[in-house]
Amino acid sequence: MMIKQTLLETSARKFMPKLFAGISDDQVRRVKEYIKLYTKHPFGGTATGAVLDDAASSQGKMIRPRLVLMAGSFGTDRDDVRERLYKLAAVVEMTHLASLIHDDIVDDAPVRRGKPSVQSKYGKNAAVYAGDFLMSRITFYLMREGLNRAGMVIAQAVEEMCAGEIGQAMCRYKEDVTIDQYLQNIHGKTVALFRACCRIGAMESGCDERVSRMLESFGECLGYMFQMRDDLLDFVPDSSMIGKKAHQDFREGIYTLPVLLAREQPGGRRLLHPYMERSAEGTLTHADICRMEEIVAALGGLEGAWNQIHTYQKRAEDILEALPSSDISLQLGKIVRKLGAV
Amino acid sequence: MMIKQTLLETSARKFMPKLFAGISDDQVRRVKEYIKLYTKHPFGGTATGAVLDDAASSQGKMIRPRLVLMAGSFGTDRDDVRERLYKLAAVVEMTHLASLIHDDIVDDAPVRRGKPSVQSKYGKNAAVYAGDFLMSRITFYLMREGLNRAGMVIAQAVEEMCAGEIGQAMCRYKEDVTIDQYLQNIHGKTVALFRACCRIGAMESGCDERVSRMLESFGECLGYMFQMRDDLLDFVPDSSMIGKKAHQDFREGIYTLPVLLAREQPGGRRLLHPYMERSAEGTLTHADICRMEEIVAALGGLEGAWNQIHTYQKRAEDILEALPSSDISLQLGKIVRKLGAV
Repeated sequence: MMIKQTLLETSARKFMPKLFAGISDDQVRRVKEYIKLYTKHPFGGTATGAVLDDAASSQGKMIRPRLVLMAGSFGTDRDDVRERLYKLAAVVEMTHLASLIHDDIVDDAPVRRGKPSVQSKYGKNAAVYAGDFLMSRITFYLMREGLNRAGMVIAQAVEEMCAGEIGQAMCRYKEDVTIDQYLQNIHGKTVALFRACCRIGAMESGCDERVSRMLESFGECLGYMFQMRDDLLDFVPDSSMIGKKAHQDFREGIYTLPVLLAREQPGGRRLLHPYMERSAEGTLTHADICRMEEIVAALGGLEGAWNQIHTYQKRAEDILEALPSSDISLQLGKIVRKLGAV
Repeated sequence: MMIKQTLLETSARKFMPKLFAGISDDQVRRVKEYIKLYTKHPFGGTATGAVLDDAASSQGKMIRPRLVLMAGSFGTDRDDVRERLYKLAAVVEMTHLASLIHDDIVDDAPVRRGKPSVQSKYGKNAAVYAGDFLMSRITFYLMREGLNRAGMVIAQAVEEMCAGEIGQAMCRYKEDVTIDQYLQNIHGKTVALFRACCRIGAMESGCDERVSRMLESFGECLGYMFQMRDDLLDFVPDSSMIGKKAHQDFREGIYTLPVLLAREQPGGRRLLHPYMERSAEGTLTHADICRMEEIVAALGGLEGAWNQIHTYQKRAEDILEALPSSDISLQLGKIVRKLGAV
């Protein structure tokens, strides 16, 4: 219970913005201005227009844009470079938004960020075209600004995001989904874009290849920690504040790390398979969910997931150790510690 | 009846490939090779993978790629230019495919090109990500090849395509939709990409701005003729061969040029509104459809639509007259005449 409470209080969704404070409000404002400029649209009075307005005035946490700027701080501090980083940070956030909008179509998701999702509020129609419009704008501005190298990294991340979502869909309700498959899926869903943020920040600010690769690996570690924490959050009973029902993943047949680790333990399969079957049949009761949660905890699934998070934490800290020290590297260290805090 | 038969026989879907024969099979093969290369994917064994394989081995008519190459024939005939045109032609076809896949999600379309649509065969899931994957590949290769200028034209066309689809969705079941709105919608849906094909062909082959603009206008005329003909095709009763039910548009509340022109005639509103209302209510009977068709014909809706097509034909022919004469310009003349043939 103690673990759950702490997890909730320090949930990625809640604490991340504060932690990314290494980037000033003014810098974030500059990124938002580019998002506003890049999402100006001719769809006034339509659902798609409303969606795009929502996107432009996004009160999102801007984690990915901040990560671009933080990685960019390891290179040249020239005005023109900084401006390019703001533009790329804007494009990255738009990429993230487009992916959320399209994911919600597939998931038939009623809620996103505690508010009705685009597809439930405006229909799949608006959601498809709002996502497509954002993607066409991303392409247009990347090419207009000649940001080809970074643009290729972003395009490849989008490809990996598609692969992750498709992989996850294929693994749904599969009792025998492996931990490797889970890792591949979250790599696509979350890690790929985190890594891309660090890579383009480093690349555009002129970091050498060694530093670029280190930052890229750092972004990867952060992405895994972020997603694994998010998956653990599904094990928090009272998550009304984040607009998600507990164990939504399990109900939807998405078996995350705690469940998979518990299943690998002696007796795990026998104990957990009945609940997996019932999730596939759609006959899970509240009591089933409680029992499943107890089994996962008893078999060490939660601790195991934390161990995995700590492995990535260690790797991320080693990278930071080897990078030049700065205010930003200290801040990144804080983020990593917080993400690793049980 | 005679008109209908001829229309069917010379339907865009049937006769266009032959007409675009100004481009050799070998050239089309080169474009298809690039499509194959650009759509290589890691999704073997998934619905999305199957969709992308379908796309790569597309037996589509390749009208848009041919148009790129034909427009490109008005400029330099250098090997490197020709290669860039093949690449752009491939990207344009992929753009078209991505838009079809996403449109079918919105339309809940069961059929596309006489075969089950992606979304009906593989689910919306595969359709969303197959479209997104194609779009990310388009972005990646445009940037890798440094085709930024042409890429910006394509990105803007995609934006207009979104606008056209959204516009059409907003006009559905609206009795008072204007002919201007119809024109705007088909501009986005079809004309924008036809125009872009001509523009990028001209631009990349080094045509001067005057010729580029003429070719662009020519592409616009062709796009309008193409779509208006397609809309007339919905008035053909026996269209089993193209996999569409007659008057599908009207049933879905998409009122096309023949209907709108008939409605503008004295008495048109009074006669047609009841059927429009019934299409909105979903209570249209077969007899209603027949009656609506008779009314549209009697009020000159079909002839009116043909007149509009002929206006674009005249404009296209004037442009061709002013362009340097060549085998390709003669071929383009034939296409225009065929599209204008009642």
